[in-house]
Amino acid sequence: MNGAESLIRTALQAGVEVCFANPGTTEMPLVAALDAVDGMRAVLGLFEGVCTGAADGYARMADKPALTLLHLGPGFANGIANLHNARRARSPVVNLIGDHATWHAGADAPLTSDIVSLARPVSAWIRSVSDSRSLAFDTAQAIAAAKKYPGRVSTLIIPSDCQWGPTEGPAAPLAAEGPAPVEAAQIERAARLLRDGEKTALLLGGRALREPALIAAGRIAATTGCRLLCETFPARLERGAGMPVVERLPYFPEQAIETLAPLRSLILAGATSPVAFFGYPNTPSSLVPDGVEVAALAAPEQDAAGALEALVHELKLGRTEPSMAPLSPPPKPSGALNPITVGAALAATLPANAIVMDEAATTGFPFFAVSSSAPRHSYLALTGGAIGQGLPCATGAAIACPERRVVAFQADGSAMYTVQALWTQARESLNVTTLLCNNRSYRILQVELARSGVTEPGRKAKSLMSLASPDLDWVALARGMGVAAVRVQNADELVAALERSFSQQGPNFIEMML
Amino acid sequence: MNGAESLIRTALQAGVEVCFANPGTTEMPLVAALDAVDGMRAVLGLFEGVCTGAADGYARMADKPALTLLHLGPGFANGIANLHNARRARSPVVNLIGDHATWHAGADAPLTSDIVSLARPVSAWIRSVSDSRSLAFDTAQAIAAAKKYPGRVSTLIIPSDCQWGPTEGPAAPLAAEGPAPVEAAQIERAARLLRDGEKTALLLGGRALREPALIAAGRIAATTGCRLLCETFPARLERGAGMPVVERLPYFPEQAIETLAPLRSLILAGATSPVAFFGYPNTPSSLVPDGVEVAALAAPEQDAAGALEALVHELKLGRTEPSMAPLSPPPKPSGALNPITVGAALAATLPANAIVMDEAATTGFPFFAVSSSAPRHSYLALTGGAIGQGLPCATGAAIACPERRVVAFQADGSAMYTVQALWTQARESLNVTTLLCNNRSYRILQVELARSGVTEPGRKAKSLMSLASPDLDWVALARGMGVAAVRVQNADELVAALERSFSQQGPNFIEMML
Repeated sequence: MNGAESLIRTALQAGVEVCFANPGTTEMPLVAALDAVDGMRAVLGLFEGVCTGAADGYARMADKPALTLLHLGPGFANGIANLHNARRARSPVVNLIGDHATWHAGADAPLTSDIVSLARPVSAWIRSVSDSRSLAFDTAQAIAAAKKYPGRVSTLIIPSDCQWGPTEGPAAPLAAEGPAPVEAAQIERAARLLRDGEKTALLLGGRALREPALIAAGRIAATTGCRLLCETFPARLERGAGMPVVERLPYFPEQAIETLAPLRSLILAGATSPVAFFGYPNTPSSLVPDGVEVAALAAPEQDAAGALEALVHELKLGRTEPSMAPLSPPPKPSGALNPITVGAALAATLPANAIVMDEAATTGFPFFAVSSSAPRHSYLALTGGAIGQGLPCATGAAIACPERRVVAFQADGSAMYTVQALWTQARESLNVTTLLCNNRSYRILQVELARSGVTEPGRKAKSLMSLASPDLDWVALARGMGVAAVRVQNADELVAALERSFSQQGPNFIEMML
Repeated sequence: MNGAESLIRTALQAGVEVCFANPGTTEMPLVAALDAVDGMRAVLGLFEGVCTGAADGYARMADKPALTLLHLGPGFANGIANLHNARRARSPVVNLIGDHATWHAGADAPLTSDIVSLARPVSAWIRSVSDSRSLAFDTAQAIAAAKKYPGRVSTLIIPSDCQWGPTEGPAAPLAAEGPAPVEAAQIERAARLLRDGEKTALLLGGRALREPALIAAGRIAATTGCRLLCETFPARLERGAGMPVVERLPYFPEQAIETLAPLRSLILAGATSPVAFFGYPNTPSSLVPDGVEVAALAAPEQDAAGALEALVHELKLGRTEPSMAPLSPPPKPSGALNPITVGAALAATLPANAIVMDEAATTGFPFFAVSSSAPRHSYLALTGGAIGQGLPCATGAAIACPERRVVAFQADGSAMYTVQALWTQARESLNVTTLLCNNRSYRILQVELARSGVTEPGRKAKSLMSLASPDLDWVALARGMGVAAVRVQNADELVAALERSFSQQGPNFIEMML
């Protein structure tokens, strides 16, 4: 058995089942090993950002890592932006990067580069393999490192001779570190603040946005009257009918500060203390107004669900039922397409148990509020701000959950970064509906430019924020990659297109002319 | 005047005229400064790899740097692959990366990452700006660093408060370091080897592939009988009618070693000693057979043209005329499309003074030989092996040379990486003809897999090397981005399409069904 085969067998034994791949020459033994071993699904992406974004989406839904298979430094570099998002999502991901044979590294061949320096900013764990005989154990360690609670990016750099060289066989799975224990003082402090009165909010993030933690939080809110907030960009939030309603912390710092201003205390569960997405002149980094006491019930690395359960116990809430959202989707909208009608159309037609990947930027903002009583769904956001996450992440989510409908609710500017994901959706016949907001602009940047004081941009600034001249024909782009596509001009057409899409198998694409 | 405006004015004073931009919120003051100052052309790319690849292509043709304008770590990361190619091409490029305001860096906002660690592998010079008042001088230094002979990548990381903060005004241009002097011993050793007999070759690379150096090399070859070789993947080679014929060192190591085996000595001018592109079992890193003496007439950082002129003088060649390629393009081919007929069709129709960016991989190999007597043209290759360079590089070359026709001779797999470049070509009405080789596969990887011993690949390996199911519809993709496109099925249709394309202004796209 060669090193490559020992790697694939080790990964399978550790429960890793999917490899999002864009291999090259230095990964050929690993490609061959995928065939030599049954059980590892190989999914081709036509650009590495598709592979890494898909691994993130897969991890958010499967709660376990997939492999990525990438080609040396430049191939890995193409995947960094979505690994940045995965890191911010705390998703477990295991990157496999082929490298030149150990004895060829010194030759400074054209594709040689410092892969470790590229990997460090997005990887919590990195190893450069030095021997085919250690590769199986290195793999087991990489997987355990990625699975460390709640999830991390680990990167294994594998010279090609370590892939084709001999081994003793696969390595046994290693136990991954679970959540760090929550200390009694954290529970007691949160309980004290909650007993203090109504001017308290729970800010939920990370794993506290899954069902058991949310239900515990809902019970606490129902009894104490505290507010339930969530991170602005959650990796995965369970919501809709049958779940407690959670308010989202606004994106713009002034609005976020205004949201938090009435509070006396903010209790963090799975979230960090909120900061501004960007620094603006005369705006603080921290979104927490002076005088608001911040208490960490559970850091992202701690067991937030357990901490919330313990808090329920500490507060002696007994079997208090939380207030749950009813099933009450909004009426189907009519008339012109705009962020309000688009959000309403999606909320009104969303099938039960859907997954919504929201990278719709300015067009997407109204959807969240209007969908709180839509059927139960998982909501995934752009966690790290590196645009181009939506289509790949939806692709990976669909592979993790083949029985669920995935909606990629997608801004046009962002979609162009990793548009190649549509082809993978077509090849794998994934149940993804892409809902593309064609407003022919980087609208958020127009807003941000105005915020920076430029209210009348000049010719060049306007041009750098416009996706017009020429207009992108998204129907042509989607069809060119094998995905059925339609264009809609108003809300009635949109509702019909969504309903049709949700009744069909496989990917399809709806271009909305906003 | 704010820092951003001082930067743009400094760049203009240093002769930098083009900015390939994909900005975000942290670059808004620079966007505004582009409008506040006349003379800096702003070109939008819909993905950062388009911007960096275009800057590389621009630099190869203009022999001076363009700016790129990129958004924090993830935006920069999307541009790394083509900066890797630019580094290998020794192209001057100046990256501007916006970053969080200095006082916001510690907040660990979602887009925060270690930009320096990402930049180091591709940048010869990096600076993190700390004060708006130093930004103009930092810019002058970044530009001088990029211009250091023959060209380098420099990276300036600019917190947004250093863009919007006050300055004293622009900084004066700084002189860039020229080529390192060639030592007399290098000339004398090369002369001695050349006098020795015919079993000598000049391996030309880098700046030795431009007209004056090539003509000097041609004179030396005409008199001494030495062979003229060039690097396998030249950044820019001047060739065709009226230039000396230069043989290209083959890509596969066995063939390269066979090419060099008859030699007694190999003289390097602007090139480094050749190494295998990849390490294979039982194949050496160095392509130079034992017993061949390697002598560096001029390293890439030295004045290769001057060294070759000095060698002409040393050899007392006087006014010997080199043997020049005649104008004798091949006949127009007919029949089926294959690498031979495709290469012949392009060589037969190529207009004078064209620029050919060759990322055609397996389909492209025959073009080089058949085009040695085509009209004079500049030939640009994929220097660093990071695929996805062709369309962006062609875009930048067309901006540098608006009066010349650019041909992006392009493999399908590689084209998908940075397909967004077509939109920039349409927006800027660039004279680029994309000649797309649709063989529905990563053909080179099929070859490489066979080389690794897998002659009968399994289902998964086949699938990872196939771009079929679904087939990409390249005409739809090009038209979707605003570029006129046709599909051709045979060589006759191809010749007609090329002739039509070369008679028109603006970009167009020819999909060849191979």
